[in-house]
Amino acid sequence: MPLGGELGRVLRNSEVHSGLCTLFLAHTSASLLINEGADDEVTRDLERFFARLVPDGEPLFRHRAEGPDDMPAHVRTALTQTSVSVPFADSALSLGTWQEVFLWEHRLAPHTRTISVTLIGADR
Amino acid sequence: MPLGGELGRVLRNSEVHSGLCTLFLAHTSASLLINEGADDEVTRDLERFFARLVPDGEPLFRHRAEGPDDMPAHVRTALTQTSVSVPFADSALSLGTWQEVFLWEHRLAPHTRTISVTLIGADR
Amino acid sequence: MPLGGELGRVLRNSEVHSGLCTLFLAHTSASLLINEGADDEVTRDLERFFARLVPDGEPLFRHRAEGPDDMPAHVRTALTQTSVSVPFADSALSLGTWQEVFLWEHRLAPHTRTISVTLIGADR
Repeated sequence: MPLGGELGRVLRNSEVHSGLCTLFLAHTSASLLINEGADDEVTRDLERFFARLVPDGEPLFRHRAEGPDDMPAHVRTALTQTSVSVPFADSALSLGTWQEVFLWEHRLAPHTRTISVTLIGADR
Repeated sequence: MPLGGELGRVLRNSEVHSGLCTLFLAHTSASLLINEGADDEVTRDLERFFARLVPDGEPLFRHRAEGPDDMPAHVRTALTQTSVSVPFADSALSLGTWQEVFLWEHRLAPHTRTISVTLIGADR
Repeated sequence: MPLGGELGRVLRNSEVHSGLCTLFLAHTSASLLINEGADDEVTRDLERFFARLVPDGEPLFRHRAEGPDDMPAHVRTALTQTSVSVPFADSALSLGTWQEVFLWEHRLAPHTRTISVTLIGADR
């Protein structure tokens, strides 16, 4: 799920206009991802790759408290990011041309996720 | 190895009470991990998964200066985190319900590891 | 490609002498890597491992707009880092003995890459 629109609103409502924006996801079975946002096939291919690398129901895992997609979600989280830092200027993230920030859900059932945003201001 | 207790002491001894806490691990064969801390089986499953994905003694690797667990430790480090940033408030990390910060050792022999903690203060 | 020399020049030219240095790579098919810099075989082994884990031409992928090394580069980016934070003091990164910061290119053809450097000053 792309976060660019919502992050843009947060930045435009802040008194800090330039600096470093650090996102933190307060969960252990979802990730923050910065990757290509222009072609939806990219995130679908990422999903396919991670589903093959760490399949739901993987018999290696013993932690199954919440079902067959529980532990694979924790492993996918460990292989990706829980916190990312992106510079911003003029109240907009300084992302590359093809970059988008995504919330990446690893569980099968829908979950409500909380992301904290810390803005640290720079002089210019 | 969970770091929450030690990080709590660092935060309570700091004059900065709220803001962003950035941890940096000054090593190339261990990781900082933020993942589920309630059930010990989760970190054991992570260990099992990484031991299968990047096995000690993997014949693909040529760098073996320190033995069969040398290069696999570097790869596991590359697949995970050397620096993580977590917001804090009232001198406590603002982690999610199930989150814990771990030092994850990838070498077989015990090693002493150094983590630097940078606290950047926020107004609120 | 090791970045230590260039980062050293940036730090020595800054008025901020100590604090936190955050690097951000504005691309989706290359990574920032902190790993062993003493033996070149380490980065070559990393390259070998990632080439086997996410091979160019992998038939699982549908996004092939820029060729067989396009989507594998996005996956390798997702498995590694786009932003890293390293403390610095006396205008030098506080890296561990064996650590080096690398720009890791995942595409086959040469690309020009942009890295932004944000320095946040600390009192000491």
